[in-house]
Amino acid sequence: MSTLVLKFGGTSVGTTDLISSAAKIIQKEYEDGHNVAVVVSAMSGATNSLIEHVNSIGQENEAEYDVVVSSGEQVTAGLMSLALNKLGIPARSWLGWQLPILTEGDHKSAMITKIVPDKIEIEFKKKRVAVLAGFQGISNDNRITTIGRGGSDNTAVFLASSLNADRCDIYTDVDGVYTSDPKVTSKVRKLDKVSYEEMIEMASQGAKVLQTASVESAMKHDVNLHVRSTFNPADTGTQISRDIEESNERAVTGVAYSKDEAKITIIDLDDRPGVAAEIFESLSAKSINVDMIVQNNFIERKMTNLTFTVPMTDLKKSLDVITVLENQISFTRVLSEENLSKVSIIGSGMRNQPGIAAKMFTCLSENKINIEVIATSEIKISVLIDRSMTEKAVNALHEKFGLDQL
Amino acid sequence: MSTLVLKFGGTSVGTTDLISSAAKIIQKEYEDGHNVAVVVSAMSGATNSLIEHVNSIGQENEAEYDVVVSSGEQVTAGLMSLALNKLGIPARSWLGWQLPILTEGDHKSAMITKIVPDKIEIEFKKKRVAVLAGFQGISNDNRITTIGRGGSDNTAVFLASSLNADRCDIYTDVDGVYTSDPKVTSKVRKLDKVSYEEMIEMASQGAKVLQTASVESAMKHDVNLHVRSTFNPADTGTQISRDIEESNERAVTGVAYSKDEAKITIIDLDDRPGVAAEIFESLSAKSINVDMIVQNNFIERKMTNLTFTVPMTDLKKSLDVITVLENQISFTRVLSEENLSKVSIIGSGMRNQPGIAAKMFTCLSENKINIEVIATSEIKISVLIDRSMTEKAVNALHEKFGLDQL
Repeated sequence: MSTLVLKFGGTSVGTTDLISSAAKIIQKEYEDGHNVAVVVSAMSGATNSLIEHVNSIGQENEAEYDVVVSSGEQVTAGLMSLALNKLGIPARSWLGWQLPILTEGDHKSAMITKIVPDKIEIEFKKKRVAVLAGFQGISNDNRITTIGRGGSDNTAVFLASSLNADRCDIYTDVDGVYTSDPKVTSKVRKLDKVSYEEMIEMASQGAKVLQTASVESAMKHDVNLHVRSTFNPADTGTQISRDIEESNERAVTGVAYSKDEAKITIIDLDDRPGVAAEIFESLSAKSINVDMIVQNNFIERKMTNLTFTVPMTDLKKSLDVITVLENQISFTRVLSEENLSKVSIIGSGMRNQPGIAAKMFTCLSENKINIEVIATSEIKISVLIDRSMTEKAVNALHEKFGLDQL
Repeated sequence: MSTLVLKFGGTSVGTTDLISSAAKIIQKEYEDGHNVAVVVSAMSGATNSLIEHVNSIGQENEAEYDVVVSSGEQVTAGLMSLALNKLGIPARSWLGWQLPILTEGDHKSAMITKIVPDKIEIEFKKKRVAVLAGFQGISNDNRITTIGRGGSDNTAVFLASSLNADRCDIYTDVDGVYTSDPKVTSKVRKLDKVSYEEMIEMASQGAKVLQTASVESAMKHDVNLHVRSTFNPADTGTQISRDIEESNERAVTGVAYSKDEAKITIIDLDDRPGVAAEIFESLSAKSINVDMIVQNNFIERKMTNLTFTVPMTDLKKSLDVITVLENQISFTRVLSEENLSKVSIIGSGMRNQPGIAAKMFTCLSENKINIEVIATSEIKISVLIDRSMTEKAVNALHEKFGLDQL
């Protein structure tokens, strides 16, 4: 007998028929004798329509936003319990305040600090299924909060950790994690296993199967995470965990990309300590997410060229920030370029295999793709290229690193 | 400075624009210096669409029904707080579990036993408006309940009592309580005041401005109740209270009716004690609401004819109940008749004025309307007539008792 947390996303519970289908997946695990806790998202579309209501009132108040928006998961939790009851499974819904799920931080972006598992464990002893409304918790002063990063995925991962669950299955509308985006490469393969770190890099590079925050949380708490399809439950999906010998043999596990990148270069920047910090703090204060950073120092001239990327939508705001800084820091010019893409190869195995970067750059060169910026981490190499070259680069790299083969 | 409870029904908060308009009504009372607590219903249509979701799962579980359906009022409470904030009024939403609002009895039809007013009173001291989600509370085991009879009106009345409020204004889509149904008599007048008892009789006779249960609760707790229009807030509406000298001068305050009545007569019923009880208990066990009851005893024959009315939709079920009873009680025949209407005249003043009944029957006779059954209470006289005569009877009585004149 194992303890399982099963999480169903919005598209998996988008209609009452889909809720009834998802209930059958739960039924199977329950009838196999497992302790089963379920976490549900709002029915797809519900959250957006609630947010529209809030927006049309036209007043900011994040505590009340949370009161309105959290009702979506409440509805699904009730309906899922009913669907389980209909299959003869004893089940009930649990809202954030009923367990409770404690959170800290601002409304609309609260962080779970504790899920009190006692009531769920009592349910398990009674052979009952617990259905939790995801995405919600309560604040210190007993108000409803919603969880910012990771949403219901994060509720599921935190719950799995609190219950010391054997598995946390994230049911969604895809079969698992793929070597790349099927919309770009027809030759993608589903990965049976990836490491937390690989998954984090893939998610942050645009592979939106799981929120980065949820994977980070799973890694931190050592949760055995699986991404599975609600519409193909026989498939075991992709396992995401620490223990991932298999993937160590692969130098590259996936090719990810993100379009709509912009590049900013500050020319002849005064190279005194703290200048870069000043720039990036000012950008961060405006919630601008800086990604790749490259600095070329001209030591003899005491000057530097600083290049970094931001999302294209933040380009204008970024340039405004730098204009304001002109009084405090010295530079000669600012250049910017739009319509760029970042393409990354990701793999835990590249730690142990030299020459991966060279192989990547050669591949791109053979395909006449010009590299504007390079950034590397332990398990990822990213290049900034012209946006029109995105598909060509992804396809070429996918083939070069043998991702289309088993 | 007074303490006010303002309740807004579903049609008054049916869109976010309407919520913003209703907020202006609250603003006026707040800026006049009053302590203001608000009770809101779900946006019109919201509850029905939630119930549809529950029904399409196709499983009975009233606790989960309450989890799903109560979310409608939660949404409006959040949105109304936002709308008040937008007008510069400090306000926040309060859900049943946050005060708490304690209830007893079954899910889906719970009864409020206590609204703990402490947190609202603290809000008043801070000059803040409290916005309560109506229709909901919690059970002893901390689950969400919804209130059966009276719904959000009942939340408002109970809250007014708990806060010892000076006034409880029920904002709805009509201007107040009328002498009769404007769809039937064009000469209706709005009543400035009615007594609790008159209102209860009118409500139970089909005048659906307020739920009977809410008026009963207001009477029990001596709540100064007003029915007012959200769309015409300058009008003071109709006051419903104990202290109602004015109406004592009127013998008749209103003419009410309900269509779709059916009549059942059990012929030659064995007239031993307990027979009637046996019949009505069996009907009640099937949730059939018996209304008018008339019994003619033939003392010399130790037999009786028992006549009563039920809603037309319950006629078949009622006849089935009586068939089952055939083994336990003795009678010769059962007659039934459909397509009847009950027309009632209501007025506290009839207690002190004799001859009202005679005047009513004469009026109907003059209009060639045949009376099938008569039932009377202290402040009401009802007759059962052919349904096709409903409008004629209502109009004639409305005029006969001078309700079209001030």
